[in-house]
Amino acid sequence: MYNIDILYEAVALKGHVCVGLDTAADYLPPRMRRESLSDAEGVLAYNRKIIDAAIDVSACFKVQIAYYEALGLAGLKAYAETLRYIRDRGSLVIADIKRGDIAGTASRYAAAHFEGDFEADFVTLSPYMGMDSIEPWLVYAGRRGKGAFVLMRTSNKGMKDFEYRELKTGGRLYDAVGDKLAELAVRYTGKYGYGAFGAVVGCTEQEEAVAIREKQRNLFFLIPGYGAQGGAAADAALLLRDGNGGVVNASRSILKAWSSTEDLPEDPDNDYPAEAARKAAVEMRDALWAAAGKAGASR
Amino acid sequence: MYNIDILYEAVALKGHVCVGLDTAADYLPPRMRRESLSDAEGVLAYNRKIIDAAIDVSACFKVQIAYYEALGLAGLKAYAETLRYIRDRGSLVIADIKRGDIAGTASRYAAAHFEGDFEADFVTLSPYMGMDSIEPWLVYAGRRGKGAFVLMRTSNKGMKDFEYRELKTGGRLYDAVGDKLAELAVRYTGKYGYGAFGAVVGCTEQEEAVAIREKQRNLFFLIPGYGAQGGAAADAALLLRDGNGGVVNASRSILKAWSSTEDLPEDPDNDYPAEAARKAAVEMRDALWAAAGKAGASR
Repeated sequence: MYNIDILYEAVALKGHVCVGLDTAADYLPPRMRRESLSDAEGVLAYNRKIIDAAIDVSACFKVQIAYYEALGLAGLKAYAETLRYIRDRGSLVIADIKRGDIAGTASRYAAAHFEGDFEADFVTLSPYMGMDSIEPWLVYAGRRGKGAFVLMRTSNKGMKDFEYRELKTGGRLYDAVGDKLAELAVRYTGKYGYGAFGAVVGCTEQEEAVAIREKQRNLFFLIPGYGAQGGAAADAALLLRDGNGGVVNASRSILKAWSSTEDLPEDPDNDYPAEAARKAAVEMRDALWAAAGKAGASR
Repeated sequence: MYNIDILYEAVALKGHVCVGLDTAADYLPPRMRRESLSDAEGVLAYNRKIIDAAIDVSACFKVQIAYYEALGLAGLKAYAETLRYIRDRGSLVIADIKRGDIAGTASRYAAAHFEGDFEADFVTLSPYMGMDSIEPWLVYAGRRGKGAFVLMRTSNKGMKDFEYRELKTGGRLYDAVGDKLAELAVRYTGKYGYGAFGAVVGCTEQEEAVAIREKQRNLFFLIPGYGAQGGAAADAALLLRDGNGGVVNASRSILKAWSSTEDLPEDPDNDYPAEAARKAAVEMRDALWAAAGKAGASR
């Protein structure tokens, strides 16, 4: 059983929301921040609240390691404890680390993020150096069910610089990445037909989204760009397949939901932000369910 | 003054060797390993010996973070202390981290690796997501002289998968990356004519190396693939310009020099490996000096 199968079942049961714990200290409500011993302690305490609040309405969590590295060694301790807390509570966690290096080094990275202090269920990877930078991670798919999402077509402006470039042999660079990932998916296929390793595909123009999904039917997608990055449920739904096959990440719109509600108390107490986060996650889940239903019906 | 200027001067003075501290615990000589309290402690102690032994015969050090991440939190403490030791001793250090993420996240990564516990003089970056994933790091070039080497054309087998692909508009993907980096180099030019941000270019076929260097005259190159990866001094020298403009990385051939000498004592004491490392670095420095002289004369 691959983690991708467990993720598929979580989506079927709890919806498509992936809660992104890109937690900056200044996302914390004022009282909680004041009461924290340090930024790292505050971030960890806040993460625990968000995890508790959203765990039954989200498919998984994604932890963006950059926010923790920025707090130095103390931040990485908070990162490790955040991962452990999610896993102990029985949910899946994606380590958003976007690593990519030559094979010998990739083996070390894989040991770092699929075992030990920083063990996660999935990682994100960068494909620039080629498939020999991905292979060492795959050992853990066979051995421990681990998964990964490899950068394919992201939704940032700069994706036009390289990802989107047309190749002489046809298609764009990201198509070439998708094709290589499809080859892996044949070798490591979960019981619902998805490869153990999927792809990061951002919300994008509708025609392109439909084309990507039609072509890569066996890749599970990690879909960023919802909410703060501007995508909407209808766009994300185009990247799903029969209502599954993808999780949609939102970070700030959930973590900072407390600050954007109209009835914000002047100095909200520590339960208020968790309630606001849960509400935001539920709204997003319901919007995605509705959109997935419609997209399913129209295809 | 940019760090790239300091690196240029270090190359002129001390040669082209970049000592790669990709230090695995099993690279340590048996006695030292036995005497270490932990793998992380042993790696740090060994690094200090290698740094002391090689600092006056090498341009800089490169620390591959994957080897430290693999040892968890204790490993990252050893990583931080290795960086600090190199900087305290007055040498430059490249953090080989190959990060690459959207702008907001890249800002966090830049804070993580250009300030605080993990402060380095240079980092390595991955360009897949585009130049908006590089820009946030550049803030630190202007403010603190920091530098980076962006993956362009690596020497691993898998580079054919994407880096080497021909684009519809001409050139290969890595050429497109080089051209974008050349644009940055115009905006941030050091006093010796090199951009604050350079490129990772591996030892490769001779014609290709000459073409890359001719085209990208203002990019300083970090050149991996020497020694254990199979490149030789003559190949690396083709990527230099007037005997400067590049550093050449070697890791295992220096770190494990103690194990490949013919007169290895059965259980070498703790000074022996450092002496062997220094000897390997000196031989590499001299080979590169000789090759750079020849390459300079022939062009």
